[in-house]
Order: sequence, then C-alpha cells, then structure tokens
Amino acid sequence: MSKFPIMFSMRHFLVVSLALNASLILRIVYDNEDDPSKYMGLKKTTTSEYDAKSRREVPIIHHLRLSASTLANSTCSDHPEDRDRIVNLDQGDPKMYEKYWRKMGDKTTITIPGWQSISYFSDITNICWFLEPEFAKEVVRLHNVVGNAVTEGRYIVVGTGSSQLILATFYALSPPDAAEPINVLSASPYYSSYPSMTDFQKSGLYKWGGDAKSFDKDGPYIELVTSPNNPDGYTRQPVVNRSGGILIHDLAYYWPHYTPISTTSDHDITLFTVSKSTGHAGMRIGWALVKDKEVAKRMTKFIELNTIGVSKDSQLRAAKILKLVSDSTEQENSQELSFFKYSYEIMEQRWKQLRASVEANGLFTLPNFPPEFCTFFNKETENLPAFAWMKCEKDIEDCQSFLGEHKILSRGGKHFGVSQRYVRVSMLDTDENFNLFIDRLSAMQI
Amino acid sequence: MSKFPIMFSMRHFLVVSLALNASLILRIVYDNEDDPSKYMGLKKTTTSEYDAKSRREVPIIHHLRLSASTLANSTCSDHPEDRDRIVNLDQGDPKMYEKYWRKMGDKTTITIPGWQSISYFSDITNICWFLEPEFAKEVVRLHNVVGNAVTEGRYIVVGTGSSQLILATFYALSPPDAAEPINVLSASPYYSSYPSMTDFQKSGLYKWGGDAKSFDKDGPYIELVTSPNNPDGYTRQPVVNRSGGILIHDLAYYWPHYTPISTTSDHDITLFTVSKSTGHAGMRIGWALVKDKEVAKRMTKFIELNTIGVSKDSQLRAAKILKLVSDSTEQENSQELSFFKYSYEIMEQRWKQLRASVEANGLFTLPNFPPEFCTFFNKETENLPAFAWMKCEKDIEDCQSFLGEHKILSRGGKHFGVSQRYVRVSMLDTDENFNLFIDRLSAMQI
Repeated sequence: MSKFPIMFSMRHFLVVSLALNASLILRIVYDNEDDPSKYMGLKKTTTSEYDAKSRREVPIIHHLRLSASTLANSTCSDHPEDRDRIVNLDQGDPKMYEKYWRKMGDKTTITIPGWQSISYFSDITNICWFLEPEFAKEVVRLHNVVGNAVTEGRYIVVGTGSSQLILATFYALSPPDAAEPINVLSASPYYSSYPSMTDFQKSGLYKWGGDAKSFDKDGPYIELVTSPNNPDGYTRQPVVNRSGGILIHDLAYYWPHYTPISTTSDHDITLFTVSKSTGHAGMRIGWALVKDKEVAKRMTKFIELNTIGVSKDSQLRAAKILKLVSDSTEQENSQELSFFKYSYEIMEQRWKQLRASVEANGLFTLPNFPPEFCTFFNKETENLPAFAWMKCEKDIEDCQSFLGEHKILSRGGKHFGVSQRYVRVSMLDTDENFNLFIDRLSAMQI
Repeated sequence: MSKFPIMFSMRHFLVVSLALNASLILRIVYDNEDDPSKYMGLKKTTTSEYDAKSRREVPIIHHLRLSASTLANSTCSDHPEDRDRIVNLDQGDPKMYEKYWRKMGDKTTITIPGWQSISYFSDITNICWFLEPEFAKEVVRLHNVVGNAVTEGRYIVVGTGSSQLILATFYALSPPDAAEPINVLSASPYYSSYPSMTDFQKSGLYKWGGDAKSFDKDGPYIELVTSPNNPDGYTRQPVVNRSGGILIHDLAYYWPHYTPISTTSDHDITLFTVSKSTGHAGMRIGWALVKDKEVAKRMTKFIELNTIGVSKDSQLRAAKILKLVSDSTEQENSQELSFFKYSYEIMEQRWKQLRASVEANGLFTLPNFPPEFCTFFNKETENLPAFAWMKCEKDIEDCQSFLGEHKILSRGGKHFGVSQRYVRVSMLDTDENFNLFIDRLSAMQI
C-alpha cells in the first residue's frame, strides 16, 4: 500500500507537465535511432523476450512478488497496458547494447564447428592454460586502442565473468596459513554483492571486513577499489592508508562511454568484464591484468579448482566482439559505427532525460560530475554512469519502496552499506524500459 | 634416473615381440577409421595442436619438467622422433572424440550472431534462471533416449562443468549454521580432485573427511558416489551406512560407451558433464538432476554468487551436440553414425589393445569386469572405463615414476588415496598418443 497518497493540486499538475515536456523534447532530439521494437518480431528465444518481465529467483531481488499476469504484460512503453507493467532496473542487465550489435549484422557472427572445444587446454605455454590466445590478443589490442590500462608486463587471467576473478584474487592474495582470514574491504557505497560473494563460503582465508572508510585494524587487508564506482559512478582511489594492504582495482566501468578516460590505469591487479564493456553479460567472460606472476598462477589455480577453466566458446566469441570494438574505433572515419561513440551518445541522452525529470519533480537528487578531458575522445566528456545513484528527498525515507510503489524495481541503499534514502537504478536497460522509467519518474509526486 | 636397468635376454625379446604383434594385429583389425592426422592441416588454433605436448602449469601435474625441444616434438606415432616424445595421459582430456565430431561435418556447427547472449537471464520462470531452455530440453531427451537417469520430477541446474556443480552441492547441502563443517567423503580410490576441491577455500561449511570406508564419526556427512568410479571404473554404491548421510551421485561416466546401462538411475542429486559424455571438455558444461526444490535453489544461488550464471554460448552449443547424439541414436538404421556405437567400438578396441599389451609383458594388472546386459544396446556389453587403473606388479613400487621413465605421464595412486603401486592412465587421448602408449607398454621390461 502506498504511504504517499496522491493529492492533486495545480502545482502538481505543473510539475508533471514540465517533466513530461522535458522528457518528450529530449526524446525527439536524441531518439534518432531505429525503433528497437521492430527487431522484436525477428527473435525467437533471445533474452530480450524477458525485457519487461520482472524476476523471481534472481540475484538479490528483495521485494515485490509478481503475478503471472504482470509478467505477461511485456509491451512497448506507449501501450496502455504499460501502466501496470513492472520495470525491473534492479540488476544492471546491459540490454541496451543489443541494438548496437544488431546494427552490426553479421560482422560479429561466429561459427563454431562441432569438433571444436574438445580439449580442456587452450595454450599450455601460458600460465593461464585455459586462456584462448585470440581472446588474449584482442584484450591487449582493445586496451591499447582505448588507452585505459597498461597491458605491458601483465599476465592475463580469463574468468567466468569478473565475479569468478574477484574470488580468484581473494584466494590468490590470502596468506594460506594465516591464523585469521584476511579482511576484504571496500568504501561505502560499495557494490552490493561484495559482502555476500566474500562470505558465502565461510572461507577461512578471507572475510568481509566492511566499509573501508571505518577500517582501523592492524595487519593485512584487501581493498577493492571500484572506479568508476558501482553504484555511484565516482572515480575512486584507495581509502585505507595503512601498511599491509593489497589493492584490487575493479575497473568494469572504466570505458569511454561511461567516464572520461583520464589516465592509463597501471595497477597490480585490474579487473574488466565484457558484461559492462560490450554488454555481453550472458557470455560470462571477464579478464584480469596481473603484474605478479605468482598471483596470476594462484588465480589460475583457483579457476582450475573451481571450474577447470573458462568456456572456450565464449572466449572465442568475446575475441570477435572485442575485435569489432577496436576496428570500429580505428576506422571511425569510415562507414563503421564506432561502438564507444554510439554508446556514449545513448548514455548522454539517457542522463539528460533523467536529470531533466529529476529536476522537474524535485523528489530526488543525483550525483554531479564536472566534465573532464577524455584522452580517448580527445575532448571534454561527461561522466555517464551505468547506474543512477538517486537520493530521495523530502520525507521519503525508503527510496526503494517509494519507487516500488510506482512499479520500478531498484536496489536500496542498505545493500551498498548506506541509508535507505538511496537507490541504485540501472541505466542500461532497453529503450522501452528506460523510457517507461522516465515517464513514471516525470509523473511522480508526493 | 631409471631404477630398472635394461637387461636384454631372449625372454625379454620374446615378450616384446609378442606384445608388439598383439598390438599390431588389433590395430589392423579395428583401426578402420580415417587417419585423424589428415585433418591436422585444416586446423589453425584448435586444441589438438597440443595433442602431443605435455603440460606445465596444468591440473595436478606432479612430475617431470619438460624441455622446449620435447614439447616441440609433436609428430605421429610412427615417426622416429616419437622415441623422445612425452605422452601425457595424466589428465582425462577427451581428445579421442574429436574424430567423431569431425565426421559429423556441419551437422553440429553453430552460428551465433553478435547480438546474442546480452542478458544475464535465460529463463526467469525457472529456478535455475540462467539455464537455457533448449539445453534443458536436450538433456531430458538424451536421458530418455539412453535410459540412464530419471528426469521426471527433477530440477535441472546447469554448471560451468561438473566441478562447479560439485561445489554447488556442497554449499546447498551444508547446514548453514552448524558449529563444525560437514564431512565430505568418498571411498578410495576416489577422484583425485575431490580433496583439493573441497578444501581449497578452507570453507567453514564443509571439509574433506577422507576415505568413506573408514569414516566412523557421528553426525551429518556428504558421500560422493562416483559410478562408474574414477579412477577404477567399478560400479559403486554408497559405503557409509550411518544416519545423517546425504548422497551425491557423480555419474559422469554412466554412458553406454563406458559401461553397461543396467538401471535407470534415480537418486536425489545426480551429476553429469559433456566433458565425458560427448567429449567437449572445453565447453565447461555440466548439469545436475535434483529432486529437492530447495537444494536446486541453493545450488543456483551458489552459481549466482560464484559466476552469475553459466556461458549461454556453450549451453547453446551443448544443446546442439546433445541433440545430434540423440538423433544419431534414434536414427541408427539410417546413414547417421551412432555416437554411442562408434565410441563403444573405439573404447572396446583400445581396451583389447591395452589388455593384450599388459598380458604380454606381465608387469601390470588391470581390473576385470564381467560383461553385463546393457538396456541401451539391448545386449551384453563390456565395461570400458575412461581410465585404465593399472597396478604395477613385481618389485615396481612407484608405478607413476616407472611409467614416467618411459615418458608416459600418469597419475599415481596416492592422489586417489591408495598405494603408489597404482596409476590412472587416460584412455581418451588421440589415436597417436594412445598407440604410442601401447607401443611403449608393449616394449616395457624390467
């Protein structure tokens, strides 16, 4: 039941009207892409069929049981039935990117014959013996093209998504014979899965140590530095300034469509994933750039004991996808549509729509980022995070519930170690879902 | 250095000659397939390039550092350079199957467009939300075709290989708030990875409890029942007969080309993998048939926290591969070459060669299995394990070292919880490697 009864007044009508106008104008100005719904009819069993369905039994769904009839209402955002449709922006499911990859047609289609992927091994001369050489080559090339990470003198370790790599780093960095598990820290608001990922096995090697900002113990620790940060999008540096610390840099979002590339990152351990860079979350492919040979060996050992390697099929596909991203960047002046330019423009448009709606209704605040010089685009660019980190204002104390009453699923602040006044909302969903979100936001009032 | 100086005598020459003849005759009789080496020239970066190379930095390699020149010697078994080539039969790398899948030509080729595998989700109506419906369908169909497992009333959980599923079952079955971790047991000789897989994270939920045959503690426990057993190939039943036990049936090898299908398995939790059933180890796809809904949910939760799902690309490929296996069985009388019949014949041939060599030189013994009625082939068939479990006789006390001196890498008994008089040798390698193994075995003497 709504805690915020709808009371109409002239002021409310004015706010709603202004917000809707702002959203509409922005959509007309920026929405010059093909209507993605035209592709819908072509698909059979692709994941986009689930675009509009909210999820049960999925990661960290905390609220709202959904009826079958609600799940069935999967129509475009201008349809009257959309009134009741739940928009799930809880996960960061990167469905926005499907449109780009459809535009690329057959350029990244891969054909795998039945006799491939027989052996466990990809390259026995590599420490990471299950790393496909072609994938490794394209990882190095892409970082060189983008300039977001040093690859020279690094070992590449491939993982089943960056989740597996995070666990592999914990294993690799934990002193094997320590009396106590090493503390794993991250500054709040931190990625909501860090605590459960760290603790679900009740490992004697490592344990979740909480907010890095309040860590005051002696001894070794691991600090996860997520930059740009999930959920709030800010550029980050380590916050614990004590001896015995080991840093893991989770740079999943350090790509030019999300944030200005200001420096070429040069850390001991850096993690990336295709889920956020190219949008292929279903591939489950991530990679680590690792300076220390022994750490790379132990990470490889973890993945060997955990899953005996990483899908070769997905590595080969990822190689082809990364190759096109590099090609589309280097051939920017030809007919190829640059992946980063295209994605930046969509993110820019979405953030403008979001800021206009938020400004109009006065119920939320958003982080503000000054533009910065981006070495990749060679100009000042915006910080356009993959998540909107919204703070509810006025007397809205539980922001997740407030959005839930407007049938928008988000993830509340407590999961990120902060107040329930905050929510994280995915900015990477389909156009239909994003537009529905903006429409509802614009119409919101208390 | 060899502990067994080579001393020539007429008796030795006779033994060697007999063994070579037996091997040669069997090869002429059975080796009526195409020479797989003719395909070698077609490949670019396939894993078979590594056929003949022994491995560093690979799972549970315990011995023998290899020089670059040795690694480079990757030629067919009749080549003089094969004298020095190390034959790695330590892992159960199922490269034998590549030949069948090449024969199938384009029938199992898969084409995946660049816009697929975007979302994390495969089927939000399923408890295992990352399970591709097409893969689930083919798993059920294959079990129905083969008759090796009941699928009705089971939840399917897909994993990144069965290793991940084993860990997922430990997590799902461990009492979450127990004071002590639950004991995980398996009867020796047990799969050599079970102890390290169980203990590498130092979990507070579960721990390796050793040989199930000597377990005498009270309280709950998990028993891994591997049948047919890795390493020795015997059909197994649980051995701990106490209250509080939970069983996991690892039936990776319960397929008609390895063992007679005598009953349709009907357990609480049963694990399978494509690595051993179809030979696609590089896909990293396994599946569990789970009776209890809550266990299936917790296993899904484990995989969510561990890797946020399983490669969609490999699931789709696996679906296509399993489909052909079912098709080739059901269309046996047409032109399709039945996967199980083909694979059974190769295994039968290899075991005959092995038994002839072993019998001739008198240095080893092998398990003996009586033929049994197989409901799949509808006749008596042989037990043809994926591994040869060899016992060294006479005064050879360290069988792994003995084979190592003949440049054959195997896995010694201590890794399986038994004496070093035993070794496990893969029977699933390429024809070249298998033949080289038989040649060396036939020429062996002390």
